[in-house]
Amino acid sequence: MSNKTFKELLEKFEHDRGVVGVLGLGYVGLPLAVAFAKKGIKVVGFEKSSHKSDQVNAGHNYIGDVVDSELKAAVKSHTLVATTDFSRLKECDAVIICVPTPLDKFKKPEMSYIASAGKDIGAYMKKGVFISLESTTYPTTTEEYLLPIIAQESGLNVNEDFWLCYSAERVDPGNHSFKTENTPKVVGGFGEEAQKLAMTLYSKAIPVLHPVSSPRVAEMTKILENTYRLINISLVNELALLSGKMDISIWEVIEAAKTKPYGFQAFYPGPGIGGHCIPLDPFYLEYIAKNYQFDLTMINTAGQIDNLMPHRMTIKITSALNRHKKSVNGSKILFLGVAYKGDIDDPRESPALKIIDEVIKKGGDVVVHDPYISTFKTEEHGEMHSVPLTDDLLKSTDCVVVTTKHTNVDYQRVYEFSKLIVDLRNAFEQNDEKVYKL
Amino acid sequence: MSNKTFKELLEKFEHDRGVVGVLGLGYVGLPLAVAFAKKGIKVVGFEKSSHKSDQVNAGHNYIGDVVDSELKAAVKSHTLVATTDFSRLKECDAVIICVPTPLDKFKKPEMSYIASAGKDIGAYMKKGVFISLESTTYPTTTEEYLLPIIAQESGLNVNEDFWLCYSAERVDPGNHSFKTENTPKVVGGFGEEAQKLAMTLYSKAIPVLHPVSSPRVAEMTKILENTYRLINISLVNELALLSGKMDISIWEVIEAAKTKPYGFQAFYPGPGIGGHCIPLDPFYLEYIAKNYQFDLTMINTAGQIDNLMPHRMTIKITSALNRHKKSVNGSKILFLGVAYKGDIDDPRESPALKIIDEVIKKGGDVVVHDPYISTFKTEEHGEMHSVPLTDDLLKSTDCVVVTTKHTNVDYQRVYEFSKLIVDLRNAFEQNDEKVYKL
Repeated sequence: MSNKTFKELLEKFEHDRGVVGVLGLGYVGLPLAVAFAKKGIKVVGFEKSSHKSDQVNAGHNYIGDVVDSELKAAVKSHTLVATTDFSRLKECDAVIICVPTPLDKFKKPEMSYIASAGKDIGAYMKKGVFISLESTTYPTTTEEYLLPIIAQESGLNVNEDFWLCYSAERVDPGNHSFKTENTPKVVGGFGEEAQKLAMTLYSKAIPVLHPVSSPRVAEMTKILENTYRLINISLVNELALLSGKMDISIWEVIEAAKTKPYGFQAFYPGPGIGGHCIPLDPFYLEYIAKNYQFDLTMINTAGQIDNLMPHRMTIKITSALNRHKKSVNGSKILFLGVAYKGDIDDPRESPALKIIDEVIKKGGDVVVHDPYISTFKTEEHGEMHSVPLTDDLLKSTDCVVVTTKHTNVDYQRVYEFSKLIVDLRNAFEQNDEKVYKL
Repeated sequence: MSNKTFKELLEKFEHDRGVVGVLGLGYVGLPLAVAFAKKGIKVVGFEKSSHKSDQVNAGHNYIGDVVDSELKAAVKSHTLVATTDFSRLKECDAVIICVPTPLDKFKKPEMSYIASAGKDIGAYMKKGVFISLESTTYPTTTEEYLLPIIAQESGLNVNEDFWLCYSAERVDPGNHSFKTENTPKVVGGFGEEAQKLAMTLYSKAIPVLHPVSSPRVAEMTKILENTYRLINISLVNELALLSGKMDISIWEVIEAAKTKPYGFQAFYPGPGIGGHCIPLDPFYLEYIAKNYQFDLTMINTAGQIDNLMPHRMTIKITSALNRHKKSVNGSKILFLGVAYKGDIDDPRESPALKIIDEVIKKGGDVVVHDPYISTFKTEEHGEMHSVPLTDDLLKSTDCVVVTTKHTNVDYQRVYEFSKLIVDLRNAFEQNDEKVYKL
């Protein structure tokens, strides 16, 4: 027996008359907002940062995966409007939460953004709203963390006055094949009505949806996807270190293993894991598992490997310099790349930052070049700047360390003018006296 | 500067005039022997077991992945002959070693089969032989373990009188798409001449070869492939146990994660790992790593999970029976399947065997049905027999445990007549009071 509020809401979604609020206009929220707006659905984007809000309203795109012209068109037609005024949540028929879920320094989930979103929604929402959480988080968050906040703040009842859903973003920054709109989306409504609303609304912007039986199944799905990556990167990092000792090129091994036509997927080693997903998401699960008296030993072990990687990379640099009878202390060391992966401009959680800190601490004279990032911060040494990659710089450097493989760097020139290279990303074909490979 | 022996040998391989000895006619050796024989290359198969040798010579196939008619044709045309007389190794221009490499009870590599093969070859081989090892083993085996044995036993010199190579089998029993001949093969010769011989010979039977720079790279490749599987199965087994506590169906989670169009490969949980590869190969690497003062923590952790799985499955059975106010002690428990995976007849390292042992120890009245295996042995209870799966058997059973999912079992009938089912393989669509799922 469906109530009137539900029917009205469903009808709005069916006829593209619902107003969609997107909470958080970052790398998840902005592409999603544009995806809805493109289909003529009115979107209000909520941002705590007035800078971002102003940018959007001026039609200025700041997210790599968003097409500039699509953002401009959406803003110009007033289909998309950004605001810092959260009281405008009362205009919305749907609210999609795209806020960050970082970990604190003790790898404990930092739930304050979700809590704050829940409170804002509860404070301003009208009766008859569909709410979807897209932030990656531990299973049970939607039902047991977010729901009580909204219910208490609003005094309204779930599945009568509002409906809840979890549907994780699957944004892969820099992925040219799969964007928000053509990536299948897993949708876990809290109850059948919520699922119906979720499927109806999301299908307007994203053609392929995969419904699951509950929010917690959808939450676990997202964590499984990224835990899979964490585990496999950690394994290959560990095997890379062993291979180095055994006079085996791990890169050659991976290329060979890839020829197996079934049952293998290649992962590549590197200086450590980075970004806003792989280093974080699995530890959300590890956190909640403890509440069930359960230790996730695979994630824990992977975490240990990854914690040690930057330090181990510093040792690699030390060993390479040692060949030239040099120490880190007093050597000029050039880092190529601080982005956490190639061809993107995001240094979040990048292992390069930790290696830079450690090398500076040991007395290294650190210089950095990243074609995508002009300024960045390390935890211990604050703001640093990228310098131009000149021949003179290369010639005057004792050791070049490739921490990110950007395709627009001319590695042949780097090879030509460098004395010594520590290649942590298989950027060089050469594997000789000059190039010290992971 | 190639020597005369090398040139003669290469020419023989080029013109299909070389005699290929295959050492060990098991699930690796026999398909390979037939693959060469099919191309008109003379093969002598060496077997310690006169029973197997006689079977082959009578044209009786005993390996699922071999086509009966191809074996018969090869034997009838005298292209393939089997023998227990290892002195006939002197007839061979190539010897391919396909012997087992098990682990002992302390997970230490049992190298005696390779040692024995090396001694036999060294004792009987003629000058001018190409030798390839296909058994899965730790990196450095070919160069540092096998080579000295052959050299010492024969008094001959590597790369003058004989050539060595490592090229792992990639047989996946029961895989209907990929067999010996259409699976790309990684080939790691010891030196350029060995590589040339290896590529020339193997290309006669296997169209796609992938050359690598050394035997140890090829050895590591095989281990990486299977370690990848071990790690991922262990992860999903651990997540399955947590999911059970969190009221989440891991099977539903995996299906949902599979909709991600990149960066994910599905692995499925089960009662533990089995077979002759996944539970063994990674521990070869762990063994040799210790020689390099290196601990492979991912493999170690995976091993810990897998060691515990059978015990944890016994606890699942106990919990399921507890719902019916029954104990394992005195209950009639029917195990469906002892093969280590579905639709094959191989119980090696099957977790079912360990669960059966534990349940018997706890006083369970164990009955087993496996449509592919009539007789098998458990470590503690010796020989056991499969019984027919009758309606009466199902009705009289307190608990059915699905340990292997064979597609020729009628699970709907099992559901209909059973009181209680512990489904460790997602064999049942139902997920209700009667079916207790992993």
